Amino acid sequence: LAVAALAELRRIVGEDGLLTDVPRSFLQDAAGAVGVEARADAVVLPSDPEQVAAVVRWCAENRLPVTPRGGGTGLTGGAVPVEGGVVLGLERMRRLRRLDPLQWRMEVDAGMSTGDVQRLARENGLVFPPDPGAAEESQIGGNVATNAGGPHAFKYGVTGAWVTGLEVVLPSGELVRLGGTVRKDAAGYDLKRLMIGSEGTLGVITGVALRLLPAPLARSAAVAFYADAEACQEGLEAAFASGVVAAALDFVDGRTLEIVASTYPGSVPPGVGCGLMVEADGHTVGEHADAEAALLESIGEGAIQVDRHTPVDPLWRWRDTFTGAVAARRGLKLSEDVAVPVDRFATTVEAVVEIAARHGLEGCSWGHAGDGNLHASFLIEPGHRDQLSRAEAAAAELFGRVIELDGSVSGEHGIGSLKRAHYLRHADPAVLELQRQVKRAIDPLGLMNPQKVF
Amino acid sequence: LAVAALAELRRIVGEDGLLTDVPRSFLQDAAGAVGVEARADAVVLPSDPEQVAAVVRWCAENRLPVTPRGGGTGLTGGAVPVEGGVVLGLERMRRLRRLDPLQWRMEVDAGMSTGDVQRLARENGLVFPPDPGAAEESQIGGNVATNAGGPHAFKYGVTGAWVTGLEVVLPSGELVRLGGTVRKDAAGYDLKRLMIGSEGTLGVITGVALRLLPAPLARSAAVAFYADAEACQEGLEAAFASGVVAAALDFVDGRTLEIVASTYPGSVPPGVGCGLMVEADGHTVGEHADAEAALLESIGEGAIQVDRHTPVDPLWRWRDTFTGAVAARRGLKLSEDVAVPVDRFATTVEAVVEIAARHGLEGCSWGHAGDGNLHASFLIEPGHRDQLSRAEAAAAELFGRVIELDGSVSGEHGIGSLKRAHYLRHADPAVLELQRQVKRAIDPLGLMNPQKVF
Repeated sequence: LAVAALAELRRIVGEDGLLTDVPRSFLQDAAGAVGVEARADAVVLPSDPEQVAAVVRWCAENRLPVTPRGGGTGLTGGAVPVEGGVVLGLERMRRLRRLDPLQWRMEVDAGMSTGDVQRLARENGLVFPPDPGAAEESQIGGNVATNAGGPHAFKYGVTGAWVTGLEVVLPSGELVRLGGTVRKDAAGYDLKRLMIGSEGTLGVITGVALRLLPAPLARSAAVAFYADAEACQEGLEAAFASGVVAAALDFVDGRTLEIVASTYPGSVPPGVGCGLMVEADGHTVGEHADAEAALLESIGEGAIQVDRHTPVDPLWRWRDTFTGAVAARRGLKLSEDVAVPVDRFATTVEAVVEIAARHGLEGCSWGHAGDGNLHASFLIEPGHRDQLSRAEAAAAELFGRVIELDGSVSGEHGIGSLKRAHYLRHADPAVLELQRQVKRAIDPLGLMNPQKVF
Repeated sequence: LAVAALAELRRIVGEDGLLTDVPRSFLQDAAGAVGVEARADAVVLPSDPEQVAAVVRWCAENRLPVTPRGGGTGLTGGAVPVEGGVVLGLERMRRLRRLDPLQWRMEVDAGMSTGDVQRLARENGLVFPPDPGAAEESQIGGNVATNAGGPHAFKYGVTGAWVTGLEVVLPSGELVRLGGTVRKDAAGYDLKRLMIGSEGTLGVITGVALRLLPAPLARSAAVAFYADAEACQEGLEAAFASGVVAAALDFVDGRTLEIVASTYPGSVPPGVGCGLMVEADGHTVGEHADAEAALLESIGEGAIQVDRHTPVDPLWRWRDTFTGAVAARRGLKLSEDVAVPVDRFATTVEAVVEIAARHGLEGCSWGHAGDGNLHASFLIEPGHRDQLSRAEAAAAELFGRVIELDGSVSGEHGIGSLKRAHYLRHADPAVLELQRQVKRAIDPLGLMNPQKVF
């Protein structure tokens, strides 16, 4: 960028808010830099919504791309700039705008970490239920922009279910409010829901109004170990038939279990091919006890072993180690996130292993069984281009299989850059065209997070 | 329409599917015909999605407006044709496409009545939680198009929260699927959510895939009577602070109570100015018992009397009589639906009475207190144009007040024709323009339900 241009940006966001020597960390996300040619002319870090609006307006006037960025914990390159221009980081906007415990609601700057949102709720006897990974680093605005999920989405829904209002800077630079603190609103199009999950391609989310719930009083978890994915599917369906709603219904497949068994808070029995992790919660002691009893009974039938876990935190902390442990196995992994109708869960778990083997690789998966949402990994060694190519071919085949099963190429990670080709290959052209029409209508210059999603 | 045009429509939908002499019932909704000049050239009643697509394509080619119509139970004129053309009724499309009780899901034609959806779920041990009024006459597609609410939206959310997929005929006549039976999907824009609540202005919903829940095993209700709206607000906030989530938190104001007291299943004590109707439910006996105890204790403080109601049906049937009884009081009423942040509930209840009185009218309200969603009525006598004018002025003033309170001019009834002027007056011009851009992008000819929403 020309010196004059940088001076204008500096005038908007101040000396501290402009980085002209773009740090490497702003050119990648949690998936690393694989497969994306990242470049940006500058990073701006606005301090308030008005500064965001001024930056976006200036970029529109100067035809410069804007790549909005939250915590950078995404896995699909959604926050990685690919056409130069400005990376717009929200990290200096972390303010609590209001917290009304009696009305179960709060409103925050988009840059507040999701961990802080969860903590503020908890300190007031409430809960913000969505729990995608990397809560401490990820920002609530980024979670909204990707409609992030997590284990507790099974009972409580994904991030979007908790958003009553958004403050958004449109691609024109206009600052608007969509929805608000009102819990119900049937006036006009639900543009707030269009923004949720649009991965920063339709505007920059600067503020978020959230609905909360009273915190559950009691929680416990259990792990049921089964001989194989088929038996796990039966356990899963038994949990659906139990008459209660589990707080979470996660799974871990046999190959992953081999890798992480040594750190399991308990002991994994021999002959295990799949594990189901079930959480029961309740707003009262009675609610929790009843739910736990019903779930334990349902998942026990056909299980090799059932372990009860209370408190639940050690189990969920163990679950958070899977991605690192599996990557460490051979040095690298290619990970993909897919979703299928729940009755195709076991079929898909088995497909990951089978497809990987056919490409001469080890494959494994874990994730949110109750939502049919699998995180599939193909293990590779660093520096072996050939293995990476085979992993990419395996992933492409998995996406095809998932589409045949009426599933989606993204359960909760979004499309970003990295899944774009796969999404474009499988999506209905009429639905893609509909999205392009919406994009052109709202961002006619095409400057907002270009080359993302579709 | 010319004879040749009618012949072409007849060829698409068959002899039985075309009504050239438009029945009066297709020119109004449950709000009657007040304030809308209705006209249509023909009614078409397609039998399947392909016929809907063919009709819409034919209308696009011939530049004829299409007004999609569900059960006609709306209250804002949303399904009333105002520019001629074709009324497209979904009433012959009532097929169950699939019901998977083990996976808590079903898929139905858009014309299935919401009552049938609820019944099918219940017969399989499940529940479809949304319960807007007129379930037997309204259609699930219309409920989705208006994102209908109801008392149980407090705990379970409005209709849109239960939709995982839509089949939609776009204004071009193209038939697309947005989402599906998968419970989680982060691929591409959430166009399904854009369609939900768009009142038939962006396409015709022909099929709906729904998420369901296990049916609650136990339910009970209670009514707490308070001296005034302020005391009721305290009861409401106590229910929020109880640590449990009520299944419903409805209210009825003092003036309405006077009118409906004689049919209350119990006896209304003297000196009552507001009543709170609370439902507790649970998937187990323990969950229900705990929730009921917590809620009864919370709403009891400050109440003149608390009545327990089990089974709950007589209480909710009584609630369904309010609208008829209040209208019968003087012969007619002008009813409006508004929503405010929950802490402004009592202020708004009092504002309805005060604004009505200032216009020389009686005003009253009931509705969904927990969602800050009031159904306000201004009582008028038939044939008194002057009273109707004053009621309209009072409603306009109420909308202004609600906006000052950070509320919405529509909590759950939508905008349609009847609330359009009010919505246009109060909405942010930038947000209106954003909606117009989306509308133009998806319906460039402007033929889909013209003159509705904005």
